[in-house]
Amino acid sequence: MSITNHQFQLASRPVGAVQRSDFHYVGEALRALADGEVQIKVLHVSLDPAMRGWMNESKESYMPPVAIGEVMRAIGVGRVTASANPAFAVGQHVVGLLGVQEYAISNGQGLNKVDPALAPLPMYLSALGMPGLTAYFGLLDVGQPKAGETVVVSGAAGAVGTLVGQIAKLKGARVVGIAGGTDKCRYLVEELGFDAAIDYKSEDVGAALQRLCPRGIDVFFDNVGGDMLDAALARLALHARVVICGAISQYNSTGPVKGPANYLQLLVKRATMKGIMVADYYPRATEAMTEMGGWIAAGKLKTREDVVQGLESFPETFQRLFSGENKGKLVLQLAAE
Amino acid sequence: MSITNHQFQLASRPVGAVQRSDFHYVGEALRALADGEVQIKVLHVSLDPAMRGWMNESKESYMPPVAIGEVMRAIGVGRVTASANPAFAVGQHVVGLLGVQEYAISNGQGLNKVDPALAPLPMYLSALGMPGLTAYFGLLDVGQPKAGETVVVSGAAGAVGTLVGQIAKLKGARVVGIAGGTDKCRYLVEELGFDAAIDYKSEDVGAALQRLCPRGIDVFFDNVGGDMLDAALARLALHARVVICGAISQYNSTGPVKGPANYLQLLVKRATMKGIMVADYYPRATEAMTEMGGWIAAGKLKTREDVVQGLESFPETFQRLFSGENKGKLVLQLAAE
Repeated sequence: MSITNHQFQLASRPVGAVQRSDFHYVGEALRALADGEVQIKVLHVSLDPAMRGWMNESKESYMPPVAIGEVMRAIGVGRVTASANPAFAVGQHVVGLLGVQEYAISNGQGLNKVDPALAPLPMYLSALGMPGLTAYFGLLDVGQPKAGETVVVSGAAGAVGTLVGQIAKLKGARVVGIAGGTDKCRYLVEELGFDAAIDYKSEDVGAALQRLCPRGIDVFFDNVGGDMLDAALARLALHARVVICGAISQYNSTGPVKGPANYLQLLVKRATMKGIMVADYYPRATEAMTEMGGWIAAGKLKTREDVVQGLESFPETFQRLFSGENKGKLVLQLAAE
Repeated sequence: MSITNHQFQLASRPVGAVQRSDFHYVGEALRALADGEVQIKVLHVSLDPAMRGWMNESKESYMPPVAIGEVMRAIGVGRVTASANPAFAVGQHVVGLLGVQEYAISNGQGLNKVDPALAPLPMYLSALGMPGLTAYFGLLDVGQPKAGETVVVSGAAGAVGTLVGQIAKLKGARVVGIAGGTDKCRYLVEELGFDAAIDYKSEDVGAALQRLCPRGIDVFFDNVGGDMLDAALARLALHARVVICGAISQYNSTGPVKGPANYLQLLVKRATMKGIMVADYYPRATEAMTEMGGWIAAGKLKTREDVVQGLESFPETFQRLFSGENKGKLVLQLAAE
């Protein structure tokens, strides 16, 4: 009996915000496994801002674009349902680039086993996954906050931002988050222990940074870009570190990206701006997971997954990343087990 | 008998390019020395792009702006003509912030003795002065080129650029300079030993960089900013270092500074952008001067001073930095000795 696999294939390159019409939603019979392959039932699909970049035709990126007609690329967690690869047994749980689909077939490359007894499966897509590594190494390896320094993070209520702020607090820094809406700002301060939060929807970010960071910003962890980056550059402390993790304000832009007009503050403040790419840190993943796992077990690091049910809502749910509706890690749940 | 001291005082904050009317040229009787002071006859005034920034009203800079009515700030080299400070004797030569004027009075702070027997005096304003330290530490400390890597420098025919390219060659790198005009480009390649030069006035810089840097740019030393910075960012190699030394294309801008629209290449290429401020390296000046002095003595490092005669031409001569007319270090000579 053949299995029908539903999936979202990229139909056209989105212009601006992603539309449902940019994808074909199709159901096709799942093919048989070749030798060395594994069949995985996808349980949770990770929705990440970086996926927007993968939809673009670009020559100069770190990953090839998703081809037209190809299943949309996404990280997911799933369960092995058939195996022709001795390294993976039926029933084991794995995480990897499974795609926006019900079933994935993999040759095992880039597939990592995870244990649902140690942590809920969606957590392997957040704190114990790519956003966790991004936050941990981006902050500690690139940002290098010292105790007592001021760390500011944009996109603070997102998957990476919530972790960056908490890790910075655990390392003794003062933390200010920038997020949209009083609800998110209250969450950052009251639930996650940020020292302060700036609601960019109702406050002037530059004025708020000036008030909340009287000695300047030592580490700015940027997920947003655009005006937010410029406001932070204008408030850098001497020898500040600016971590470029993303620029969600620019990903849907149909014009040129807004470059940081205040970049000469890097000169005035002898500051460093550095990009981080999580894949560079995969070889050191154990280091991060050990410390993060310990914090989570001790109740010192809180994670929140924003789980939406159903594969079919993918285009609209993905768009929530850009409208700022999600709080914590946005995950699409396809099946319970 | 009192000495009349001619000087350029800042009369108004320039809007865009500097005009003669932005200054008052005045002659005033030189006052007597107080205890601890030194009188210096200014022989050579250094004309540097950074001076344009000092003319602006800005809160967020590394130095206070020159006040309206104050003598224009400039580095100069001169000879002590009277002294009430035991550390300085009449006849000694010194370098420091002497100002755009015939005579300076100093309390000795920030004044350094130089020896005209070791090097021509204008060289203490170029390779053996501030541009030399900027090039040496900006390239080696921040850029950190390795042998065989590709170094690109903008403003390559200027005081700093000519040194950056030659030091990079001495350290075993491949060097491409960007300058304006075939004459300057020929000078870089034929006289200074650059591997290649791009004439931004007649070539598409992006296309030329693509052709001349097939493996990407490992170190970009930027004196220019604007479109030049964007073109270089688009061609970075993995783990590239971008040294922000200046942005001469933007200093006369009356609108907002053009931020680098391609800054997200820092993320894609895991690259670093860092500002350099020469004053940070003054404590290590000996280190640079020893190595640079050795190179100059051995004929391995060439310096060129573009010397213009006469204090009165200051506003027009200064403007040559921005029109790109100078080749090498621009110096205003006030007196022979």
